[in-house]
Amino acid sequence: MSKRRSSIAIPSLNVLDRTANIGRQLAQALRSAIARGELRPGERLPSTRTLAASLKIARGTVVEVFDQLTAEGYLEARVGAGTRVAAALTDASPAIPPAPAEPAADDAIDLPAPAARLISIARALTSHPPVPFAISVPAAGIAPDDNWRRLGNRVRASKQAAPSGYQDPMGLLELRLAIAEHVRRARAVHCEPEQVIVTSGTQQGLYMAGRVLLSRHDPVWAEDPAYPGLTAVLDDLGLRTHRLPVDAQGMNVERGLELCPEARAAFVTASHQYPIGMPLSMTRRNALIAWADRNRAWIVEDDYDSELRYAGHPFPSMQGLRPSRVIYLGTFSKVLFPSLRLGYAIVPPPLAEAFAGARAILDRHSPIAEQHVLAAYMREGYFEAHIRRIRSLYAERRAILLAALERALPQGCQVQPSDQGMHVLLWLPEEMDDVRLAARALSAGLAVRANSPMYAAQPARAGLMLGFGGFPQAQLEAAVGELSRLLQALIA
Amino acid sequence: MSKRRSSIAIPSLNVLDRTANIGRQLAQALRSAIARGELRPGERLPSTRTLAASLKIARGTVVEVFDQLTAEGYLEARVGAGTRVAAALTDASPAIPPAPAEPAADDAIDLPAPAARLISIARALTSHPPVPFAISVPAAGIAPDDNWRRLGNRVRASKQAAPSGYQDPMGLLELRLAIAEHVRRARAVHCEPEQVIVTSGTQQGLYMAGRVLLSRHDPVWAEDPAYPGLTAVLDDLGLRTHRLPVDAQGMNVERGLELCPEARAAFVTASHQYPIGMPLSMTRRNALIAWADRNRAWIVEDDYDSELRYAGHPFPSMQGLRPSRVIYLGTFSKVLFPSLRLGYAIVPPPLAEAFAGARAILDRHSPIAEQHVLAAYMREGYFEAHIRRIRSLYAERRAILLAALERALPQGCQVQPSDQGMHVLLWLPEEMDDVRLAARALSAGLAVRANSPMYAAQPARAGLMLGFGGFPQAQLEAAVGELSRLLQALIA
Repeated sequence: MSKRRSSIAIPSLNVLDRTANIGRQLAQALRSAIARGELRPGERLPSTRTLAASLKIARGTVVEVFDQLTAEGYLEARVGAGTRVAAALTDASPAIPPAPAEPAADDAIDLPAPAARLISIARALTSHPPVPFAISVPAAGIAPDDNWRRLGNRVRASKQAAPSGYQDPMGLLELRLAIAEHVRRARAVHCEPEQVIVTSGTQQGLYMAGRVLLSRHDPVWAEDPAYPGLTAVLDDLGLRTHRLPVDAQGMNVERGLELCPEARAAFVTASHQYPIGMPLSMTRRNALIAWADRNRAWIVEDDYDSELRYAGHPFPSMQGLRPSRVIYLGTFSKVLFPSLRLGYAIVPPPLAEAFAGARAILDRHSPIAEQHVLAAYMREGYFEAHIRRIRSLYAERRAILLAALERALPQGCQVQPSDQGMHVLLWLPEEMDDVRLAARALSAGLAVRANSPMYAAQPARAGLMLGFGGFPQAQLEAAVGELSRLLQALIA
Repeated sequence: MSKRRSSIAIPSLNVLDRTANIGRQLAQALRSAIARGELRPGERLPSTRTLAASLKIARGTVVEVFDQLTAEGYLEARVGAGTRVAAALTDASPAIPPAPAEPAADDAIDLPAPAARLISIARALTSHPPVPFAISVPAAGIAPDDNWRRLGNRVRASKQAAPSGYQDPMGLLELRLAIAEHVRRARAVHCEPEQVIVTSGTQQGLYMAGRVLLSRHDPVWAEDPAYPGLTAVLDDLGLRTHRLPVDAQGMNVERGLELCPEARAAFVTASHQYPIGMPLSMTRRNALIAWADRNRAWIVEDDYDSELRYAGHPFPSMQGLRPSRVIYLGTFSKVLFPSLRLGYAIVPPPLAEAFAGARAILDRHSPIAEQHVLAAYMREGYFEAHIRRIRSLYAERRAILLAALERALPQGCQVQPSDQGMHVLLWLPEEMDDVRLAARALSAGLAVRANSPMYAAQPARAGLMLGFGGFPQAQLEAAVGELSRLLQALIA
């Protein structure tokens, strides 16, 4: 066993390919020989000089390979005693070859419990192709325009926005300044840049708010129906969610006070209820704030599209009414474009660092170059000009959609009044299966979102969310015609 | 109470600023009047025609304001009965003014339990300024070079990479193809593009793996010491973590088999233990795989820097040995740059959709434009060329650092041998306080990471992580001189 071999008789060594990496081949051949038992634990190898000579390769290559296999634990080197196959390989369980045979086919994998749940979420949150009536499709040629690209090229060429190391999880300070300025002016949000955390959008804002504010099993309020991305977060965090019905004044806060006054947080789309569209009334806003004050609870205000208001004045934000109890979430997905993945959270100052910690755990921070671009876009006035332009374009397209629906829709369908956003909600006759209709529509080249799956506790009401922003007149009108045919067929 | 006022005596209406938005001023004046009780619940307002005439403003403006306040819940309109202050305002609790007074100062905010914990994480995970010896600072002028920017400008000008709607949470298919090709060739990873999920880096990969594979209180194995970002994730997910000591062969798998053979997953930096630097030996790899097979447990392989190997051959990935049990995590933060925020997870096919669901909940997907740029960078061969260049540059800088340390270091300090990565670990004399030293170094303009806080269960060993990639010779040598002075002062 301790006799040193003067050569190694390993078949694969005879077929060394001299045009490829010799060392790598030698290492692999030795590993295989050990695995197959051709070289046994404790057995001495030839000296590096001998082996190099016998293989007609550089001695340095053999030395490197021996070092490598020693590091891997295949070989052991003792001073003066040469190199041996590691004795430890005998200690290991007998079932340890270098690559134990695969024990079962992939399809035999037992899914971990969370995985099964996450698979159904992946299916529920599937994004739509850019066909009518997908929401959040930026209008071609305008959103955002060539200014965005040219400015981007310029900004990225500057040293500031060049490739760099890890950055502040709160986001780029210049961007946070621009965001604070924007929300103060446009949404009456009270904040300093220190309260602004750049997010990758509302979805992450909701997840972070959940992580920072709440512990598992904490009771919370949410609207019913609600944004499915919120429902997924609340479930994922193991919260006890009380779903409050939505009426003409928005979320029924009184119902929350009956059901669970001790809730720790309320998640609300106050300015434009998602998916239905009404704002939360002032009475309800005040009741919600009074509750939060009394119970030291939190209000998470998802203000996803209030830049896009077509009539009346926007409601001032809830955050402006009570900055110390509200987490305000905004996004650039609607006014700019979703694939940018930038948004923001405005949080009470004592919570800012905790949000930074949540971000650090989740993904550290948003990419920096585009934050520089967006900061410049806002600072140089492009952003406001862009909002004005898309607001006017979207208002026009919305009017086209509403007129086309008016003309073409069968009895029993009805548009929910709303003055804001990138979609309108079409109520369907009660008996209609909106999920089935949405599936049929997708086969027919229309992307509509069914309303009924967004209800959790209340009786679901059938409806469709119709986005209009990304599609010119002819496309919208043709799509309404197609939708009308599908509806007629289901009613008939 | 039901008498209709023929005019409204609201002081603020007398000071309407005719150069600004009249409607907004009128709405605010009415809200304030209602709040102050100047207009009482149930009280009828003048007709829009009368009010418009009395204020000398367009009737349409008044109609809009009434609509707005009706939507907000301040007013009620009944057909034929005119517009009244909402009766509901009386039902609400007496403590409901439009903006109830702030009940307490911000500093009286009671931090939610998770927030306090996240604040300490934010502090622990603070990133370093780009001074020696910060790790992950891209080398100026090389990482990545002008090709990256020019290619980026070209790609973003194409229609493909233009602003768009929501995309696949798995990431851009072209990029997933390029990643699959890269890891197959460079790391012997067995995978198809369907198994590749684009992440925003290793941190997110670790979080997603935790969410998909594990439920709260599940037992897991982790190395000791370990990457603090991993420790934060394991704590955040409420897992029962068994910390296994690291010896010359890497994570002590035998200890895990004694402590908790029923663990559901093992998190391991197999190719380059973080922070110390040795690879996991082949014997340990096989023992780990045998354990995973037996217990249907998972191995999460964090392979953060194996492209940067300076001697010997890289170990083949664990994933290549057992594709069905290993989640393989890679990142572009080390070979390209951290502020790009792109990485990847390679997962067994049955888990791919669950990872997509986790991503959808957390933040939907990574920004798309840079995914297009990176895919082109890889496809057109720039990426491989870049790796070759930085590997050679970093090898040189590493040698400079090691030589300078050799010359300058006081007795009792010792460099941990390692052939890979962007940092070397310097062991300090046992009694030395590496945290204090790191703080002093930061004041002196040096960014070093203390080793001892990365231990959880084993006795902490004092050491410093020294990054070298981002700094040329003169800067590295001066920094070693400064570090040596700080060390001498502490030893003396």
